[in-house]
Amino acid sequence: MSDLLERLRTGLPAEALITDPDVTASYAHDMASFCEAGTPAVVVLPRTVEQVQHVMRTATELRVPVVPQGARTGLSGAANASDGCIVLSLVRMDRILEISPVDRIAVVEPGVINAVLSRAVNEHGLYYPPDPSSWETCTIGGNIGTASGGLCCVKYGVTAEYVLGLDVVLADGRLLTTGRRTAKGVAGYDLTRLFVGSEGSLGIVVQAVLALKPQPPQQLVLAAEFPSAAAACDAVCRIMERGHTPSLLELMDRTTVRAVNALASMGLPETTEALLLCAFDTPDPAADLAAVGALCTAAGATEVVPADNPAESELLLQARRMSLTALEAVKSATMIDDVCVPRSRLGEMLAGTAAIAERYDLTIGVCSHAGDGNTHPVVCFDHTDPDESRRARESFDAIMALGLELGGTITGEHGVGVLKKEWLARELGETGIELQRGIKAAFDPLGLLNPGKLF
Amino acid sequence: MSDLLERLRTGLPAEALITDPDVTASYAHDMASFCEAGTPAVVVLPRTVEQVQHVMRTATELRVPVVPQGARTGLSGAANASDGCIVLSLVRMDRILEISPVDRIAVVEPGVINAVLSRAVNEHGLYYPPDPSSWETCTIGGNIGTASGGLCCVKYGVTAEYVLGLDVVLADGRLLTTGRRTAKGVAGYDLTRLFVGSEGSLGIVVQAVLALKPQPPQQLVLAAEFPSAAAACDAVCRIMERGHTPSLLELMDRTTVRAVNALASMGLPETTEALLLCAFDTPDPAADLAAVGALCTAAGATEVVPADNPAESELLLQARRMSLTALEAVKSATMIDDVCVPRSRLGEMLAGTAAIAERYDLTIGVCSHAGDGNTHPVVCFDHTDPDESRRARESFDAIMALGLELGGTITGEHGVGVLKKEWLARELGETGIELQRGIKAAFDPLGLLNPGKLF
Ligand SMILES: Cc1cc2nc3c(=O)[nH]c(=O)nc-3n(C[C@H](O)[C@H](O)[C@H](O)COP(=O)(O)OP(=O)(O)OC[C@H]3O[C@@H](n4cnc5c(N)ncnc54)[C@H](O)[C@@H]3O)c2cc1C
Ligand SMILES: Cc1cc2nc3c(=O)[nH]c(=O)nc-3n(C[C@H](O)[C@H](O)[C@H](O)COP(=O)(O)OP(=O)(O)OC[C@H]3O[C@@H](n4cnc5c(N)ncnc54)[C@H](O)[C@@H]3O)c2cc1C
Repeated sequence: MSDLLERLRTGLPAEALITDPDVTASYAHDMASFCEAGTPAVVVLPRTVEQVQHVMRTATELRVPVVPQGARTGLSGAANASDGCIVLSLVRMDRILEISPVDRIAVVEPGVINAVLSRAVNEHGLYYPPDPSSWETCTIGGNIGTASGGLCCVKYGVTAEYVLGLDVVLADGRLLTTGRRTAKGVAGYDLTRLFVGSEGSLGIVVQAVLALKPQPPQQLVLAAEFPSAAAACDAVCRIMERGHTPSLLELMDRTTVRAVNALASMGLPETTEALLLCAFDTPDPAADLAAVGALCTAAGATEVVPADNPAESELLLQARRMSLTALEAVKSATMIDDVCVPRSRLGEMLAGTAAIAERYDLTIGVCSHAGDGNTHPVVCFDHTDPDESRRARESFDAIMALGLELGGTITGEHGVGVLKKEWLARELGETGIELQRGIKAAFDPLGLLNPGKLF
Repeated sequence: MSDLLERLRTGLPAEALITDPDVTASYAHDMASFCEAGTPAVVVLPRTVEQVQHVMRTATELRVPVVPQGARTGLSGAANASDGCIVLSLVRMDRILEISPVDRIAVVEPGVINAVLSRAVNEHGLYYPPDPSSWETCTIGGNIGTASGGLCCVKYGVTAEYVLGLDVVLADGRLLTTGRRTAKGVAGYDLTRLFVGSEGSLGIVVQAVLALKPQPPQQLVLAAEFPSAAAACDAVCRIMERGHTPSLLELMDRTTVRAVNALASMGLPETTEALLLCAFDTPDPAADLAAVGALCTAAGATEVVPADNPAESELLLQARRMSLTALEAVKSATMIDDVCVPRSRLGEMLAGTAAIAERYDLTIGVCSHAGDGNTHPVVCFDHTDPDESRRARESFDAIMALGLELGGTITGEHGVGVLKKEWLARELGETGIELQRGIKAAFDPLGLLNPGKLF
């Protein structure tokens, strides 16, 4: 242990090392409740690639596990410490190195905050789409680690689609450059994509080349109230079937709407069973919203209210973005699912989730990236009540089982971490897991990088 | 050998096996000239997944290499036979299994022809974007094997972005399902993406779930003539810098224009140094073309001619699509480069290529997916002239060296195959190649799948 600190100090300034146990303890876990988390030996906050290499060389020499961390807003325990590990926090490597409007790329360090990058590229008339609701705090490194989604994914896709190239420090400290600065490229296996979503288990991302889009017109949002989740899902299917390309298509159930009103008095309609938000950032969003509004009415919407202006639209988005936080305040604890099903099965998914809530006698609020079929059922429970806690875990699992039954995946965007390890094995099967392990072994033969996550 | 045939026959109908050496010889190589190709022991044309599994089990038992093939339109020798191998042609597995407008996916077998799928989904108001110029003959399996691009990539991206999930028969005959039918998913490392562009070296793709887009409005094309490649590249940069999103942005040099006219009397303007084609499939393409036309004029275009109607647009596209074929007719042989550079370096790339042509005293015609910075310099030479052949190979290599110097990649879309193996090692470096080999070993420990390709 003191050997570890001594070795680390040879290549790091004093301010880059935290050893005070009270402080290091605060780096033990991310935002997922009820995931195991160990006690780190030390927290390192490097500022340079060389410092990261020094940490990894030291870790390899001394066989000490390393847990990379961004802002720890993760929802699956993927950034949780293991006992005696080095927590490697990348938040101080937060420089935007380049923004090129001609090449439509940005080159960034991993600690850059998502919203900071978004605003910086906006100033060049550019757009970095991936927008997890945590965007004001989460980092690009964490977004890459989890292949984050967000509200705009229904039109623009997830983080994975915006990562062109990476600089990665490998477990043994070597620096690897993958991918490219170019729009296209097929030189060998796609290692870049392999790192995206690998939850810090294959290497430390120290630089990324990100693709940008031209900034679209400001989006306009419509809110539609439905008497049932089934009717709202029917509307979602009609919208997509007719060939619309909304820039956002989100669903909040009554529990979520109430929670948001309770948290921030947003004045959302509490009598509705399902509130659908749809937006367009097309040249004529009002026309597109009118067409979608008609489809909503045909599917049984009781109210269809297009926002009059961008400010009203932004309010609706804020309400949606605070959904998870609001649901967390319903009871003392929550477990957040992240099942994604083919959108044609979304109605069955929501009906099934309601049945599970009833069976286990629990409040489960659901907000969804409906256009993507990605639902976040939030199981709300009192963690001081052992029976309710047990039922919460069982319902959390039942929801994943239902998702797989409907041809979906256990995780659309939050990742596996420690929370869904058993479920990953169920989803991928024996052969799949064996190949995943084979890849892990090729990159990290000593198993030092973020051990105990994924599988 | 006869042991191999006997074993194969136990799980395959007679019509699935070709052993006549005259016929099997015709399966020895793809469309790349001057790549080594061996003599196959047998060609197998399976119709079912079980048959593919039987072939791979047999190959593993008897340690016989297997070379998967689609339509053999590849341009890097990636589908070339090795001596004594089983050629596994997937062309008879050509069923479209499902098209879902709500989920916006198609499920297909690997032998489906790209254009056949395109037309089939069009009938449902849907669009499968990847459109290599060989689209009337090449297969989806081959497109996945090479991560194919095409004309529409500047707006819609390459094949990789449309592959959601795969069924793959592994080297030992096990069936692996990767990915999903859902819009999003982050369950474990992205094996799907790893197979895309792997040139048949990791497994046999037997089924694919492909993402579809709603069909956009018919595109309208503009042709602009420039007095120099530099001016045309300047126009490309201006167009992208101003935030336009063309559905196509292609450049043909004078050699290419003449070759196309010679092949098909297309009446393209032969006096121009560089012909830029730009298209939009937006709601108001004429307005977008007018804006782009003005930028072309500002960059020095001597003529700017927007197509009046879709038929005229289609003619221009046809001219562009036949460029490679036309250039192949210039001399007795060609070597086709596929360098992709950041689009801000496109001008330097084209100037450098012209200098290389002069230095080696050769005709090098260049057509480019200019919006992506992806150039296809086609080295034309007389293969019966040993000195010209040597100069051709040297200039072909010099072009890749230039691409790397400019921060680009040796292959934007045609892949590595046998043609660019040494260059892959140069681009990826020692660490990169070592990891690539590690992945290969995890999937194919006996090295039976398409040996001798990539690295
Ligand atoms: C209120 C709230 C709303 C949210 N909304 C969304 C949403 O809409 N969509 C969504 O997808 N997620 C959402 N999340 C989850 C979370 O914000 C995302 O997963 C985010 O990408 C995590 O970023 P982070 O910087 O906090 O990373 P962390 O949580 O610190 O780390 C995440 C993973 O990445 C790894 N990692 C971090 N940095 C690196 C690096 N440099 N190199 C290698 N590995 C690294 C970690 O080891 C860990 O496995 C939400 C979370 C909250 C709390
Ligand atoms: C005139 C012309 C124009 C072209 N234009 C373009 C263009 O614009 N853009 C572009 O990207 N390419 C282009 N190409 C190249 C070529 O058409 C593409 O690479 C195409 O994707 C190859 O498809 P194929 O079916 O012919 O595959 P093949 O050439 O038979 O095989 C290609 C690779 O995929 C592997 N493979 C094939 N099927 C499977 C399977 N089922 N499972 C696993 N591996 C498999 C093979 O082993 C091989 O490595 C062009 C070629 C020609 C001749």
